[in-house]
Amino acid sequence: MGNSMEPATNPKLFLPEYKHIVEAKDRISRFIKHTPILSSENINKIAEAELFFKCENFQKVGAFKFRGATNAILQLSDEQKKNGVATHSSGNHAAALALAARMAGCKAYVVMPENAPKVKIEAVKSYGAEITFCEPTLQAREQTLKEIVERTGATFIHPYNNPMIIAGQGTACIELLEEVNDLEIVMAPVGGGGLLSGTALAGKGINSGIKVFGAEPELANDAYQSFTKKELMPALKPNTIADGLLTSLGTLTYQIILSNVDRIVLAGETEIVSAMRLIWERMKIIVEPSSAVPLAAILQNKAIFKGKKVGIIISGGNVDLSNLPF
Amino acid sequence: MGNSMEPATNPKLFLPEYKHIVEAKDRISRFIKHTPILSSENINKIAEAELFFKCENFQKVGAFKFRGATNAILQLSDEQKKNGVATHSSGNHAAALALAARMAGCKAYVVMPENAPKVKIEAVKSYGAEITFCEPTLQAREQTLKEIVERTGATFIHPYNNPMIIAGQGTACIELLEEVNDLEIVMAPVGGGGLLSGTALAGKGINSGIKVFGAEPELANDAYQSFTKKELMPALKPNTIADGLLTSLGTLTYQIILSNVDRIVLAGETEIVSAMRLIWERMKIIVEPSSAVPLAAILQNKAIFKGKKVGIIISGGNVDLSNLPF
Repeated sequence: MGNSMEPATNPKLFLPEYKHIVEAKDRISRFIKHTPILSSENINKIAEAELFFKCENFQKVGAFKFRGATNAILQLSDEQKKNGVATHSSGNHAAALALAARMAGCKAYVVMPENAPKVKIEAVKSYGAEITFCEPTLQAREQTLKEIVERTGATFIHPYNNPMIIAGQGTACIELLEEVNDLEIVMAPVGGGGLLSGTALAGKGINSGIKVFGAEPELANDAYQSFTKKELMPALKPNTIADGLLTSLGTLTYQIILSNVDRIVLAGETEIVSAMRLIWERMKIIVEPSSAVPLAAILQNKAIFKGKKVGIIISGGNVDLSNLPF
Repeated sequence: MGNSMEPATNPKLFLPEYKHIVEAKDRISRFIKHTPILSSENINKIAEAELFFKCENFQKVGAFKFRGATNAILQLSDEQKKNGVATHSSGNHAAALALAARMAGCKAYVVMPENAPKVKIEAVKSYGAEITFCEPTLQAREQTLKEIVERTGATFIHPYNNPMIIAGQGTACIELLEEVNDLEIVMAPVGGGGLLSGTALAGKGINSGIKVFGAEPELANDAYQSFTKKELMPALKPNTIADGLLTSLGTLTYQIILSNVDRIVLAGETEIVSAMRLIWERMKIIVEPSSAVPLAAILQNKAIFKGKKVGIIISGGNVDLSNLPF
């Protein structure tokens, strides 16, 4: 999603700080689920580390995205709320924005590609959003969204390159560190970078000595490339089972990650599927492939994590049970 | 499993009471997981009731069975521990007894039918039990177990018709009511009746006004028959996807259920599979078919539960991910 087309109603693209996450936590806490943190002795034995999983798969709409969407919508003026919010997405952000909008009593316009999975369309519809279908190209999605914003005056809520979205996503890490306060590393998967940015700001804000790692599929390693080359690189033909991580970093998330993240660790496709199955079998929780990327990266790079206390944000649990990779 | 063949080393078959569950809780608490209680707004809407799921699928070995096995083993004298414990089982009790024995530093002998699922055999093996295979008949299992007990002096730990097993299983209900103290109904699936007996003793012990319901598959309704006719009936050719509920009540569990349970509600096979899928999709947790029987029974009998606060013990999460019913 290019920033060039961002409508004027978009909140200013300032760089959020730790204090914005603390404010977000106060703002959204009575609307979101305070999700549990789970551990598995079996997985710890395999990883030779002590892992703590913050289960955002149990969050409303089944993903951390609900935190950011709620924080962004609660920031709007009454005037803005009257005109509603808009986004384009085929994934969890659309459902999160739709539900957060309904809770705030405002309208949500969602542009979805006409080939979006039926289950995702149904979810967005069930939360009462107005869906506009378009051709499955980024250009068509942006153009359609632009028309809707011009026609309705709705506020465009970007899925990750928005300071209020980033601040909302960071609240999961605050909850994690409140409960397990001696973590040495916190880890989140990275796609567009909203979750990793928020996690990094929260982690370093609470404990400047903590290490913050991103986990990314080898086959969609734009964040790794951008981070290593210190230059914002687009994702080139990303192709991974971790469908939540196909997007590229945005201008804000890139800057935050560059300044606050210590390392980006990669995971192969086979390892992602194995880690996903391991989580299902040993922890008895349903996680989507993107959520398994941190564990996959740990098991592929055990030396880095050996003996450490590591917190992992499980990003979501929305999978098609009729179409599992195992 | 007939009581006729129970070895002399078996603890006396007394009827456990609420105090035994309280004692069990103190005894086992540092060995077991204190499992979380989860809810789903979506499922509450569908059920038109307020449901609280006590997630024993997150318990060690993936099932509540670990509570009873741990309580039974911690009761043994040093002399008994030296000779080990024995059971026959193709299911969760075998794994639970094996792990509990290893933790107590004593040997476990497990008789398994030679056609037991490979994944269950591997689990029992991984906990260090000595497995003896036999023909897949109840007679062969009992005979093989008898020979092992005679040869080794091991204490036979029955999977449910044992007061210490029943007391251990009841501890899940105490934890549930400690956290949600205004439940109107508590519900557990019923197979051999260990979990339901313990749940009933705990529930009524804490709040004599609470209703305790059992949930049973229509196609394995021996507990329903025994409860209704007030006469212990064996399961006649039980045939249900809820593979944990194929066993019949024992002499102890029958008496406890008759005196302390208010109702047994039945669920059809299609409804069990649908309820299982609903739990997976909406709650993002992995539960085995037996665990879905209470929700299936609720959705099939909505009038009974309408507007009520209902606690449900999720019994376990051990399923073969390569062979799902949906």
